[in-house]
Amino acid sequence: MYELISVDDHIIEPPRVWADRLPAKYQEAGPHVIEEGDREWWVYEGNRVDTMGLNAVAGKPQETWNMDPVRYSDMIQGCWDPVVRAKDMALDGVVGSVCFPSLPRFAGTLFLEFKDKELASLCVQAYNDWLIDEWCAAAPDLYIPMTIVQLWDPKLAAAEIRRTAARGARCITFPETPAPLGLPSFFTDHWDPVFEALSETGLALNMHIGTSGRLIGPAPDAPFHVYIMLAQATAAVGMVGILESQVLRKFPTLQMVFSEGGLGWIPAQLERCDRMWERHKMWSHLDDLKPSELFKRNMYGAFVDDSVGLSLRHTLGVDRILWESDFPHVETMWPHSQDTIKRLAADLPADEVELITNANARRLYNWPKKEKTA
Amino acid sequence: MYELISVDDHIIEPPRVWADRLPAKYQEAGPHVIEEGDREWWVYEGNRVDTMGLNAVAGKPQETWNMDPVRYSDMIQGCWDPVVRAKDMALDGVVGSVCFPSLPRFAGTLFLEFKDKELASLCVQAYNDWLIDEWCAAAPDLYIPMTIVQLWDPKLAAAEIRRTAARGARCITFPETPAPLGLPSFFTDHWDPVFEALSETGLALNMHIGTSGRLIGPAPDAPFHVYIMLAQATAAVGMVGILESQVLRKFPTLQMVFSEGGLGWIPAQLERCDRMWERHKMWSHLDDLKPSELFKRNMYGAFVDDSVGLSLRHTLGVDRILWESDFPHVETMWPHSQDTIKRLAADLPADEVELITNANARRLYNWPKKEKTA
Repeated sequence: MYELISVDDHIIEPPRVWADRLPAKYQEAGPHVIEEGDREWWVYEGNRVDTMGLNAVAGKPQETWNMDPVRYSDMIQGCWDPVVRAKDMALDGVVGSVCFPSLPRFAGTLFLEFKDKELASLCVQAYNDWLIDEWCAAAPDLYIPMTIVQLWDPKLAAAEIRRTAARGARCITFPETPAPLGLPSFFTDHWDPVFEALSETGLALNMHIGTSGRLIGPAPDAPFHVYIMLAQATAAVGMVGILESQVLRKFPTLQMVFSEGGLGWIPAQLERCDRMWERHKMWSHLDDLKPSELFKRNMYGAFVDDSVGLSLRHTLGVDRILWESDFPHVETMWPHSQDTIKRLAADLPADEVELITNANARRLYNWPKKEKTA
Repeated sequence: MYELISVDDHIIEPPRVWADRLPAKYQEAGPHVIEEGDREWWVYEGNRVDTMGLNAVAGKPQETWNMDPVRYSDMIQGCWDPVVRAKDMALDGVVGSVCFPSLPRFAGTLFLEFKDKELASLCVQAYNDWLIDEWCAAAPDLYIPMTIVQLWDPKLAAAEIRRTAARGARCITFPETPAPLGLPSFFTDHWDPVFEALSETGLALNMHIGTSGRLIGPAPDAPFHVYIMLAQATAAVGMVGILESQVLRKFPTLQMVFSEGGLGWIPAQLERCDRMWERHKMWSHLDDLKPSELFKRNMYGAFVDDSVGLSLRHTLGVDRILWESDFPHVETMWPHSQDTIKRLAADLPADEVELITNANARRLYNWPKKEKTA
């Protein structure tokens, strides 16, 4: 059995994550679950959220898949229960898992929209504490703690990175490009406190496709699956933006993952970047850091099922490839991940398989293998 | 010497393309060149255009490259003179060339903005007649006629396709996705008359990156070269949009090229499309045409210098790859295209080199090799 570390899974938060942690005055405004009109709803600050679990389809027949579970009972228990999830993961050979939030969205951008920013900050901290104290504590060898930050205030965010790092966090989730959220871009020095805190604590950045809330597509009337097919373009936009900003020049030890971005397009994107860098560097006054070299120093790609990407692994760098399950979303191969890896890795030498299935992730997240006691 | 057919070059129109062809009443409103403030300007309908030749940099030292030649004399003569260009091409081993317009923009979208649509239509026809009668006639074995159409009226456009096909045109240039131009998308039946005329005449479609006028990037304050590095994302958006529209289902013989889009990202994009098609087809009610199979039936990719793409040529389909020079723009390797092909094709069998350098283009554009008379 392959030992798999998934760098991209999704938590469906159970109902009391915030209710159990917010002070009494925020119980009504903070996120909590109500029953109304024959379904359940997440409500906060007078708003309702349409879905209870995005497209949490794992374990259901394909013809019943949709984007809208409306009750916890529409999903398998492993979606929100970390103990049951741990058994689901064991069944699939998964020994490590980085989980993105759902209600807060992939990088906690929900709280960016909160009117009451004191409440918003308490919500960020409540999620992180719940994640560390309940979710990860339920299976401490399995769950690699990833926290969210206060996106509206880089100094608060930096403090939260230091606070959660001290509590065992190994990485944060962050938008792959902040500008579409109305935030300053990576071409400013606005985010330096965040990158400084990450550099100091050694925490990695995980940028999940679509976190910026901007989907790239041909036309407003394109069917939704077209946007899904093109989703890796959002990873490309994030990656090239960071490569050509000052971020990796000022913070040369940062490590970042483009989650659910796929691998196969990256070598061609980097070849194009290098060629354009070569041809534009004089009149655009670029420095001598080649985009492909920066990638190999600071970035990782991730795959669910990507034969093209793995055929290009030596161009990409075998030590820059991570595996992801995407449990319980539509991309996941669960509970057949072992078969998928077997098919994809059939011709790969054992040391390369070890790197891409777990060793790269252990190095990146500082998550060494626990020695079993005899 | 390799026999090269370039499917993507750029004409800088000489000053009298429209002045020589528009009726007297339109001489002032139609595009013409004036001298003012120590430079030349294209003017039309009271507007001025900033550049005289986009980034026509061929033949100039790299440290002097910029986006703004302000005079014809800032460019080498082959930019606008088809006889001199033919010698430039011969020097590079180029035996066939498809040229995109500059003042009208890559697909004639300038005329879409004209207030007077009678004038706009005359301008489209004037360009096409000039292209066939002067540009292509100057070296009829070399220049493969590509025409523009009236984008604001599919029926007029269809008539222009039939008119220019009868005059020898082999292809048209068209936006890779019309929606950002304020036009109906490919997810409507608005464009059926155009696709019908193309199917009937056998003319191909060339979609140049950036034709839709929308550049994809991370933030408004990103430096311009970041948009250039990401330009292939616009090809991806166009390609996936068409693959998942009804266009190729209703017009199964259409052939289209994604010019300057590069090759290397296409196999990964198609693998992702196929996987998403497989996983979403039930709840999205997709038919049984696999995206990668449609690509191999109806589409072509093109490359200037793309070692990743050529390493994936069997996944992509060797008969779906075209070469492009991009003369006289910044991507061109002119006058060193032979060296570039030698480097890229060193390990390829001769029959594959023949396909990608010229035979695919001859088949696509119905442009057979002329037998030399003894």
